[in-house]
Amino acid sequence: MTDAAALDRDDPLAAKRDEFEIPEGLIYLDGNSLGCLPKAVPARMAEVVSAEWGGQLIRGWNDAAWIDLPTRIGGRIGNLIGAGEGTVVAADTTSINLVKALSAGLALRPGRKVILSDTGNFPADLYMAQGLIRTLNKGHELKLVAPEEVESAIDDSVAVLMLTEVDYRTGRRHDMAALTQKAHAAGALAQWDLCHSAGALPVDLTRAKADFAIGCTYKYLNGGPGAPAFIYVRPDHLPHVEPMLSGWMGHEAPFAFDLDYRPAPGTERMTVGTPPVLALSALDAALDVWDGVSMTDVRAKSMALGDLFIEEVERRCEGFGLALASPRDAMVRGSQVAFRCAKGYAVMQALIADGVIGDFRAPDIMRFGFTPLYLRYADIVQAAQTLERILREETWRAPQFQQRGKVT
Amino acid sequence: MTDAAALDRDDPLAAKRDEFEIPEGLIYLDGNSLGCLPKAVPARMAEVVSAEWGGQLIRGWNDAAWIDLPTRIGGRIGNLIGAGEGTVVAADTTSINLVKALSAGLALRPGRKVILSDTGNFPADLYMAQGLIRTLNKGHELKLVAPEEVESAIDDSVAVLMLTEVDYRTGRRHDMAALTQKAHAAGALAQWDLCHSAGALPVDLTRAKADFAIGCTYKYLNGGPGAPAFIYVRPDHLPHVEPMLSGWMGHEAPFAFDLDYRPAPGTERMTVGTPPVLALSALDAALDVWDGVSMTDVRAKSMALGDLFIEEVERRCEGFGLALASPRDAMVRGSQVAFRCAKGYAVMQALIADGVIGDFRAPDIMRFGFTPLYLRYADIVQAAQTLERILREETWRAPQFQQRGKVT
Repeated sequence: MTDAAALDRDDPLAAKRDEFEIPEGLIYLDGNSLGCLPKAVPARMAEVVSAEWGGQLIRGWNDAAWIDLPTRIGGRIGNLIGAGEGTVVAADTTSINLVKALSAGLALRPGRKVILSDTGNFPADLYMAQGLIRTLNKGHELKLVAPEEVESAIDDSVAVLMLTEVDYRTGRRHDMAALTQKAHAAGALAQWDLCHSAGALPVDLTRAKADFAIGCTYKYLNGGPGAPAFIYVRPDHLPHVEPMLSGWMGHEAPFAFDLDYRPAPGTERMTVGTPPVLALSALDAALDVWDGVSMTDVRAKSMALGDLFIEEVERRCEGFGLALASPRDAMVRGSQVAFRCAKGYAVMQALIADGVIGDFRAPDIMRFGFTPLYLRYADIVQAAQTLERILREETWRAPQFQQRGKVT
Repeated sequence: MTDAAALDRDDPLAAKRDEFEIPEGLIYLDGNSLGCLPKAVPARMAEVVSAEWGGQLIRGWNDAAWIDLPTRIGGRIGNLIGAGEGTVVAADTTSINLVKALSAGLALRPGRKVILSDTGNFPADLYMAQGLIRTLNKGHELKLVAPEEVESAIDDSVAVLMLTEVDYRTGRRHDMAALTQKAHAAGALAQWDLCHSAGALPVDLTRAKADFAIGCTYKYLNGGPGAPAFIYVRPDHLPHVEPMLSGWMGHEAPFAFDLDYRPAPGTERMTVGTPPVLALSALDAALDVWDGVSMTDVRAKSMALGDLFIEEVERRCEGFGLALASPRDAMVRGSQVAFRCAKGYAVMQALIADGVIGDFRAPDIMRFGFTPLYLRYADIVQAAQTLERILREETWRAPQFQQRGKVT
C-alpha cells in the first residue's frame, strides 16, 4: 500500500498549495476544467479595478502598460510551453484562436483540402473547423479518424493536422513531436490545442516544430473562469500569415488610424480587438504561482497522482461497474484519469455533494483531474475512499443526484 | 452667459455622479474612450473572484449562473438600444462581433458583392471587413465613400451597408432609421456599430429595423477596459444565420459533446467560446447605474453639455487655431465634440497634465466626450477655461508634452 503521508512529506511541490485558496474540506479534482484561485489574484484584481481603471482611467493604457498585456502575458505562457520569446500572445478564446490558426494554415497549403483530426478532439475545435470550411466554401474536408489511427491517416492530402494533445475525456496523450514530424514529412502543417497540456505537463513547441498552437488558461494555468486564451505561431510562418481576423490591435500602427490594414511584424498580428484588461490582469497574477516551478517536478507528481488514483479506485471499487477509460501507462496520459460508469452522472453528483469534485462528460465518463501544484497524495486516497463509500452505500441513487444542471 | 451652477442644480441626472468613482480634481472628458468606474464594481469583482471562483469553483457555472451571463447581460444592454428580449448577447470583442455579423449578412445576400461603408468609420471595422473579404475570396469589395455621400451611394449592388452610427472623431451622427430604410429599399442589409451610441443616446434598433448591430461596453456603458462587446441580430434573420464562428457556446447542446455543430435556436448561436466570467461580472455590476435612467434625459443633457462646450471654447479660444470638427447642430452629433488643431497632440497632453482628460486622434483631432451620468455643467466651463489658459500661456510647448505614448 502506498504511504500517502510519506509522499506528501517528500513532495518538492508541497509548499505551492499555500499559494491557492482551497475551500475547507474540499478535494478538488476538477482543476482540468477550472483551476483554483491563486491567492495573489484578489489583491491584483482590486488594484486593477480601483487604482488602475478607477484612478488612472484612460491613462492606464500607457501608464499601467495595459497595451502590453497580450504580449507580456503571452511571453509568460510561452515560457511554460517551450515557445520562443515573442511567439505567443494572450487573446480572445481558444475557439477564436483556433480559427485564426486554421485559416492561416489552410492558406499556407492552398492545394490541399483535408483537415485531419480525431474523434477524441474537443468538439468545440471541430465545430470551429466546420464553420470555417463552410465559410471558405473551397471544398475542404474535416476528416475524423480514431485517435490511434491518426498517424496512419497522415498523407499528402492533408493540409493541416489539427489535434488536441491530451484527450479531454480519456486523457490519452498524442506524441506531439512524432506526429508533427510525420505531418511535415507529408507536407502538412501541425496545429496543436494545448488546453489540457499547458501547465499540466512539459510542452516543447520549439523542439516539436509545431506550426501553430492554441490553448486556454483557465484549467492548469488557473487564470479564472473564461480567462483569455493564447496562440502560438512558429516564427518562420509569421511573415506569411495574413490574419483572417485582421483587427486593429494586430495592425502595424493601430493608433495611426489608417483606413487599410497592414499586419504588425510580430505575433501581435494574431490579436484582434481591444484586450480584456481585467481578465488579463487576473491571469497575470495567477501565473506568478509558476515562478520557480520545475515542469519536470509537475509531470512526475502528476503521473504519480494518477497512478495512485487508478490503483486506489480499482482496488476499492471492484465490481461496481467502473472501467478505466484512460491509458494505464502514465507516459501516454495527461494529468487526468477517467472511468466509464453507466451511472456516472449520479455518482459524480454524489461525490460532489460529499466534497470530492470531479466532473462528468457525456455519455458515461467520470473525469478526475490532477493539479500537482495544489493536490496532495492524501487527497487522492481520500477521494477514492469517498467514491468507494458512495458505490457501496448506493447514495448516488438519491433523486437529487439525477437532476442535470445546464453545465454538466 | 450660461449659468452652469443653475444647470447643475436643475439636472435630473445630477445624483448619478455619486454612483461613480471620479478621481479628485479630475475633469474626465474621455468617457467615450473608457467610462469611469461605477462604485458597485469593486465589491462585485471581489465577490466573483473570491466567493464564486475561489469558493464555488467549477460549480459556479450552474450555482452562480455564469453560463447565463452572455444572454442575461445581453438582455440588459438590449434594453438600452431598443432591442427585443433575447436578441442581444454579450460576447467577444466588437471586432469579432463585426465579422460574425458581416459574414452572416454577406451570406444572406449571395448575389451582391459590395460592402458599403464610409471613410469616417472606425478603422478597426474596415480592417475586419478587409480580412473577411480576403478570406472569402469571392470578389467582394469594401466601398468607402465620404460620410455625407453614403445615402446616395446605396444601390442594388450593395449587400451590406456597414456603418458606425457616430463618427469616432467628429461625432457626426448618421440617421440610422433613414439609412436602414434606404438600404432595405435597395435590397441591402444594414449593420450598425453602436460603440459611440450605446449609453450615449437613444437607439431603437427594433424601430429602425436594423439587421445587425454590434458595439463595445467600455465607453458609455462603463464596463471597464476591454470589457466584452455585444451583438444584435434581427430576430427574423436569426434562423437563416449559419455562424461562421461556430463555437460550442453557440451549439444547440454544448454539453452533449456531439461531433457536429448545430446552432442554438436563439441568439446564443452568436456566442463562440467559454464566456469571460470576470469581465462579464464587472460589466453586469456596471450596468446597474442605468436603473431608472431615462435615455431622453441623457440625450438632452448630452446635447446641452456639447453645446455649452462649443460655446465656451469658441468664445475663449478664438485666434488660437482651433476649428470645430463636429456638427454644430446637436441633433446630428453624438455625445462628443472635436476640434481640429495642428498642435492638438501637445495641447491635449498639457490639458491632461492640468487635470482635464480628453484624447487625441491622428492627425489633428482633439476629442472631448460628454457622459451625462457623471459630468457637470461646471466641469465643462472649467475644462474650457483650462484650455484657454494653456493656449494663452503656451504651456503646451513644454518638451514633455511632445512625447508620444504607445496609445494616443
